[in-house]
Order: sequence, then C-alpha cells, then structure tokens
Amino acid sequence: MNRPIAVIDSGIGGLTVLYELNRQLPKERFIYLGDTLRCPYGSKSEEEVRHFTWEMVNYLLNYDIKMLVVACNTATAIVLDELKEQLPIPVIGVIEPGARAAIKSTETERVAIIGTENTISSQAYDQALMSINPSIQTLGVACPLFVPLIESGDLTSDEAYAVIEESLSPILNDPTIDTLILGCTHYPMLQPLIETVLNNHITVLSSALETGAEVSASLAFYELLNTDIEVEEQIPTILTTGHLSVLKRIKDELFHFNNSQVYRVSL
Amino acid sequence: MNRPIAVIDSGIGGLTVLYELNRQLPKERFIYLGDTLRCPYGSKSEEEVRHFTWEMVNYLLNYDIKMLVVACNTATAIVLDELKEQLPIPVIGVIEPGARAAIKSTETERVAIIGTENTISSQAYDQALMSINPSIQTLGVACPLFVPLIESGDLTSDEAYAVIEESLSPILNDPTIDTLILGCTHYPMLQPLIETVLNNHITVLSSALETGAEVSASLAFYELLNTDIEVEEQIPTILTTGHLSVLKRIKDELFHFNNSQVYRVSL
Repeated sequence: MNRPIAVIDSGIGGLTVLYELNRQLPKERFIYLGDTLRCPYGSKSEEEVRHFTWEMVNYLLNYDIKMLVVACNTATAIVLDELKEQLPIPVIGVIEPGARAAIKSTETERVAIIGTENTISSQAYDQALMSINPSIQTLGVACPLFVPLIESGDLTSDEAYAVIEESLSPILNDPTIDTLILGCTHYPMLQPLIETVLNNHITVLSSALETGAEVSASLAFYELLNTDIEVEEQIPTILTTGHLSVLKRIKDELFHFNNSQVYRVSL
Repeated sequence: MNRPIAVIDSGIGGLTVLYELNRQLPKERFIYLGDTLRCPYGSKSEEEVRHFTWEMVNYLLNYDIKMLVVACNTATAIVLDELKEQLPIPVIGVIEPGARAAIKSTETERVAIIGTENTISSQAYDQALMSINPSIQTLGVACPLFVPLIESGDLTSDEAYAVIEESLSPILNDPTIDTLILGCTHYPMLQPLIETVLNNHITVLSSALETGAEVSASLAFYELLNTDIEVEEQIPTILTTGHLSVLKRIKDELFHFNNSQVYRVSL
C-alpha cells in the first residue's frame, strides 16, 4: 500500500494541507500538484474550475494514486461530488472536515467562517454544518485581502494586523461566536496573527489540520494505510504548472520541505 | 437513513461516547447497550469478553442498525477486528480515533496514555500510534483507582485530587510530554480535575470526543447520514443488562439525558 496519495490545489494554499498530511502521516507518499499557472480558481467560471480540476486529476491518475485530496475550497465546492462519483478511489475535500471539527468544538452552536468571496457566497460550509446539526447558526465573512497579503509574504506586520482586525470586526462584535473556521487553505499561514486579533476568545480551526486527520481516518477505513514497517518517513513530491521559483521559496521558508523536489508539468 | 446507530459498552463509561455522539450528531438515532450486569470487562478473560460482546451485537442486530460503535477500550482491543470482518456494517472503536487525535495534537511526538491496567498492558494505543507515525514515543500509565472513584460519584474532592496527582506523577515528571489520551471511557468525567492537576500544560484528549467526530466522518464516507430534513434531533434509547437505578441516576445527573428511557434487557 505504498501507492501515492495525490493532493491538488489551484496554487500554493494547499501546501498547508500537504504539510499537515506529511506531519500526521509520515509513512505515506504524497504528490502535490498546484495549478499555479491558472490560479486563482476563485475568479474562474464553474465550467473552467471543473475542466482544470479534471485535467489535474487525469494527470495524477497515471501515478496509480490510492486516494485524492482536493486541497482547494473552490474546487471542493464545485467538483467534489462528481469526483467522488466517478473515481474508483476515495476522494476527500477540505470543507466537510472543517465543518465536522467545528461541530465538535462549538458549545454555543454559533460558528463563523472566513474565506474568499466565492467560498463564502457558495455557503458550502453553512450547508455542511447545518445538514449535520440544524441548530448551528453561522456567520460567513469574506476576507478578500487575506490571500494577497499572504502571497506578498506579509504574515506579521502592523498593516497585516490592521487588515485582519478590520476584516474580522463582524466576528469580534458577536460575543456568542466561539468557533472560527479558516475556510481557505492559505489562511493557516496567518493563523498566529488571527488568533492574536481574536485574543484567544475563539477556537480557530484550520481546514488543513482537520483534513489531515480525516485523511488518516479514511485511509484506515478503506484499509489503505502504508503498513510497510521498514518505511519510517517519505518526502513529498511537488508539481506545479507555473514558475518554479515562488513555489521553491515558499516550500522551504514556510513549510520546511527542503528535501522535496519541485517539478514543472504541462497538463 | 434513519436506521439507528448502536453503541455498546461493558457498563456506564460508554455514556461519555453516547453523549458526544448525540451532541455532534443530533439528527441520528442512537441505541446504547451497557452490559452492567457483567462489568467490568477489564477483569474477564479474552474469551469471555469476545462472547459477551458478540451477545450484545447479536441482540442489537435485531434493530436493523446501520453502524456499530464499540465504546469500550477492552472490547475494542479484543474484538474490534473480528467485528469489522464479520459484520456487514461499519464498526468504529475508541482506540484509533484517540490515537489519530494525539498524532494531530502532539508537537513533541511524546504522548502519554492513561487507562485501566488491561488497556495499558495491551499496548493497543501505543501500537495504533506507532503504526501511523513510528517517531512517536509513548508513556502508558495504569490508573486502577480512577474507575472506582468515578463510580462512587466523587469527581471533585480533595481526595480525588490527591489520587489523580499521585497516579499522574510519571507524566508530571516528564516535561517532554505534550499530549495525554484518556484511554478509558470513564475518564472524561474526571477531565476537569485531571486538567487542573496537569496545570493546563498538556493537551488532554478524550476518546469519547474524538470517536464522536470519527463516527460523523464515517457516516459521511459510507453515505449513511440521516438526511431527513424534517428531523432536527432524536433522543437516545438506553438499554442495560443490570439494575436500572444507577444508570437512571447517572444519565440524568452527569449527561442530562433526562428524556431518554432506560430499559432492562436479557441477552
């Protein structure tokens, strides 16, 4: 069962998911594919997102993958159901694990979600939460400035603090909310600053962390865990459709994937 | 998909799991069966535990259950694999969810487990942790005084504090441990006092909480969630093989299952 697990994203955000998968499941072999050439998917039509996602999946099926992780909220919202239906392997998205973790965490049954405008307007998290527990009330807040902030490399400045404080004010003004879902795979990179702004009053849940745990559980359910006792850890392979330089810098500086090779591929 | 989910335990400890299942999955219908007549299983032979567990399972199969949750560490360690193999429905135990949560939580890769002498000497948690992440080092500590303390109803006294402090001293003396698994379904009832003794330096994980989340995930994987939009919440049914009085008191005082009926059954 040393077949690889594929992790796909529109760009670099999914590296937060890859990081958690690799940390929680060191014996597994991961192949990450970021479609950086065509990101962000948030501004593309549904048809384009569907087409691009299937191009990534078809490319990765050549690697005899045993599971597919869709580490992108937009692609999860649009394509997850048909991927699940049509592929002969288990498919995990980022929305349900985040929603389930919020249900586990909340005591007030008031949960906030932050994400890109597309993710918030899709109400994918709201639906996932309420389909499991109809008593839960949600507050979705779009934070369109967070991804540009992260991609510019600013994760700590006073300006970043001000942007986050301003963006999160609807949440700060509602004392009944006790749980916040980071509904965008980029956001865990801002998590320390977000927790500072929230003054630790609210439990902040990363879809990345929770998706890691759920992939672990589903590997066990489907009896797909790598049980080779001689393998202690494996190094992820990172593929991109775009330029190598940005991904190479981020993988080392933020994720310490210094041993991972990055390759450019054409879909 | 309004078929019930069965939750079995040797006695009352599994009510912590039932509480979390009902809280996290209010739309689902649960039937709990505690074999209080013959508990504790910890002191029985493997053959007896296997026989008793199958008697409970065979009884509950009459209810057309869609999933089985084994909310008992001893029965999980001994019978889970054969239940998974032989039953046509998904079967979830309490050990793997706790182990996966610890892998998600630990940064030092040093995890302590507390449980009954049987559970600790079985090394079931150690094996589950290390099969997923071989770098993790474990410290198992048997706490044989905790269950009698809980069953006597003493969850807060100075004496209880002293017993916990004494029992947990191997963990308190090891500054590298950052995560503790409550490897007995009774222990969440002592969790506030355990966290006080540990002075909040160590993340305390309840198998009950984590099993709740994993049952939720697996219902989704197997497409077994109750999707009836008219059902908002359902009240668990509680069955026991022993006297009704203790279970009735505990279910109300500790778990607020005031609306649940308790019935006595013969296996």
